Amino acid sequence: MSAYRPLSASLLIDHLATLPDLTARLGGKAADWIAREVSDGNLNTVFIVTGPAGSVCCKQSLPYVRVDPNWAMPLERTLFEARWMQAVSPAVGHQISELYHLDEGLFLIVMENLGSHQVLRSALVSGVAPAGFAARIGEFVGHAAYATSWRALAFEDVYALRDKFSRNLALTRITVDLVLTDPYRSACSRNHWLSPELDDLVTALQEDAVLHTAVERMQERFLSSSQALLHGDLHTGSIMISGDDVRVIDGEFAVYGPIGFDLGMFIANLVMNGYAQTGHEDWMRDEIALLWASFRRAYLERWEHGGAQGDLGSLTQPASCGTERTRFFQQVMHDAVGFAGLEMIRRTIGFAQIADYEAAQDRAGEIEARRRALMTGRSLIQKAFQIDTIEALLDHV
Amino acid sequence: MSAYRPLSASLLIDHLATLPDLTARLGGKAADWIAREVSDGNLNTVFIVTGPAGSVCCKQSLPYVRVDPNWAMPLERTLFEARWMQAVSPAVGHQISELYHLDEGLFLIVMENLGSHQVLRSALVSGVAPAGFAARIGEFVGHAAYATSWRALAFEDVYALRDKFSRNLALTRITVDLVLTDPYRSACSRNHWLSPELDDLVTALQEDAVLHTAVERMQERFLSSSQALLHGDLHTGSIMISGDDVRVIDGEFAVYGPIGFDLGMFIANLVMNGYAQTGHEDWMRDEIALLWASFRRAYLERWEHGGAQGDLGSLTQPASCGTERTRFFQQVMHDAVGFAGLEMIRRTIGFAQIADYEAAQDRAGEIEARRRALMTGRSLIQKAFQIDTIEALLDHV
Repeated sequence: MSAYRPLSASLLIDHLATLPDLTARLGGKAADWIAREVSDGNLNTVFIVTGPAGSVCCKQSLPYVRVDPNWAMPLERTLFEARWMQAVSPAVGHQISELYHLDEGLFLIVMENLGSHQVLRSALVSGVAPAGFAARIGEFVGHAAYATSWRALAFEDVYALRDKFSRNLALTRITVDLVLTDPYRSACSRNHWLSPELDDLVTALQEDAVLHTAVERMQERFLSSSQALLHGDLHTGSIMISGDDVRVIDGEFAVYGPIGFDLGMFIANLVMNGYAQTGHEDWMRDEIALLWASFRRAYLERWEHGGAQGDLGSLTQPASCGTERTRFFQQVMHDAVGFAGLEMIRRTIGFAQIADYEAAQDRAGEIEARRRALMTGRSLIQKAFQIDTIEALLDHV
Repeated sequence: MSAYRPLSASLLIDHLATLPDLTARLGGKAADWIAREVSDGNLNTVFIVTGPAGSVCCKQSLPYVRVDPNWAMPLERTLFEARWMQAVSPAVGHQISELYHLDEGLFLIVMENLGSHQVLRSALVSGVAPAGFAARIGEFVGHAAYATSWRALAFEDVYALRDKFSRNLALTRITVDLVLTDPYRSACSRNHWLSPELDDLVTALQEDAVLHTAVERMQERFLSSSQALLHGDLHTGSIMISGDDVRVIDGEFAVYGPIGFDLGMFIANLVMNGYAQTGHEDWMRDEIALLWASFRRAYLERWEHGGAQGDLGSLTQPASCGTERTRFFQQVMHDAVGFAGLEMIRRTIGFAQIADYEAAQDRAGEIEARRRALMTGRSLIQKAFQIDTIEALLDHV
């Protein structure tokens, strides 16, 4: 473990040269390596280091938000990302990057470089994402959620895993504030939107007491329902894609919560892309249907064949609980609908918005897409607990 | 902190004599003190120590279950009881005993001696409990639940408190096994019941796959719903009563969970007493109605006047959320109904049964009471999510 310092390209190379495993992976000597900064997310510094034999991806926390250095942020977030990788990797295999090395002093992760992959959001915006990617994401969520659930683990093991991620306070605070609260507060200076065109809708959202009650119902679900270990930030910018190889990255927001949180966030990002880009809407609807079907299949496959190792479900044989399955998936759908609504609103008027809107044909198209997102988001939050099926969800977006 | 050894009366007096605060409280010198063992619960050793100026109650963990020395049990349970007292005391005041001293090495709690109080279960069985006691228990649950909820605390504080009690593994394991699972397993040797008179009902409960699905729904609620810090074992043997002074003791099972767990367990113990003892049934029904009304009033009072200090509820003014209140109390009722059903079954055929049944008029009366408890318990578990109000609950018991 090393003392913390923000690593420049050359400091990073010096550090990697002290690690025999990584030196072997890169090949040659440090003088042969090239470190290239590719930071893209809001929070951290990312380098790709390439040597004669291979390359690695290095991610280091900064003591502040990368895109807003006045916003102080504890360094520990990369530790939670590494712990998330360790926790879900046995269940999801190569749907995440391989973790090569963690330095808890430098808050540095060294992992598989997905050199031939593209960020899914960029691929969608450029129109080059292959159809069907959402099936892989559905599988990922189904497998990770089952493996970390009370059905798969004794409650003692769930408690221990949940406690580990209950210390992920700084990033969970971001979710609680930016996703679940701020967009509904008129006094919040982090909000911003296309003005004057969205002023009327923003005012309506921020003055709607009935909506706020429904938002709080989702806050309660996020906070009090410990169903499974979530990715916690599963938008299209947290996915890397290369043909049919789809990888989930950036698990630093991981925390126990309701499974529908991950699904809803991903669904919302597909819906918003469909609204923004001409010709994408039917495609995105197909992907959402695929996401849900593959989530359901993956979760059920583990439920049926995983045996009853956890404390939940030890009384029934999986084959006998058709009504319980129906209830379970309806409840996940309710959460997914509500959290999709929250994500649509916060990505349209909150602190962290999305590039998809800028890919609209023109300003009128962008405004139309953003207005649809706000209105649909509001409707989904309010109707969340009445929407039981994927067909009903697709009727509402 | 001292090295662990099970304390005899004289070792306990020697230990207390080293503590100036307790010496002052007892008065005189160690030679003037008398320690009397009054162990009554299943798990621990309890002494009352009396001196010229006052008395204290001392509770020490044994490395096994007191009533079954072959059942090994970690010592730490008294630590969780002390932590529970510390956590709820600011919210519930004198509804619990005052904690004077905790020795984490001896696993010893020294607390207020409730010398003039009687265990509520004994008072009920003897018919000497004053009517109206349940109002105090409802208040206790309402105040403790609100104070440890996401409405009262920032999520960081709830996470920290929840984590503290997530280490209460041995006693939570008892709840998961004895309350939520074992009674439904025919192969579980800890179960016992009046045979042959209950054989038919026990077989039916243990072969009923639809019931088992409903039981698992309650398992999921207990495990995955972190609404508030529970007492975790709130039966009539965990209450001390003296006139209108009602105290909740024995918080060693404390863990985060659904608020309805505590309410349901207490309701079940009242229902079973009403079934067992001639003339108690209407009285117990009145107490159940009082419990619910006072829980509701106490929780709402804090919700309305406590301000929105937590992360849940920061968007709405309490006055504006009538529909949310209705939803919240319905959901607590659903849980209370389901957990009441589980408690009735486990106290009738499981490991730890209740003395109330032995107070029935005769064996026929006892069998009738136990059969009613099993049938009502089964019905409550299955209908839990359809019973929305206290009136509907009383119609079903």
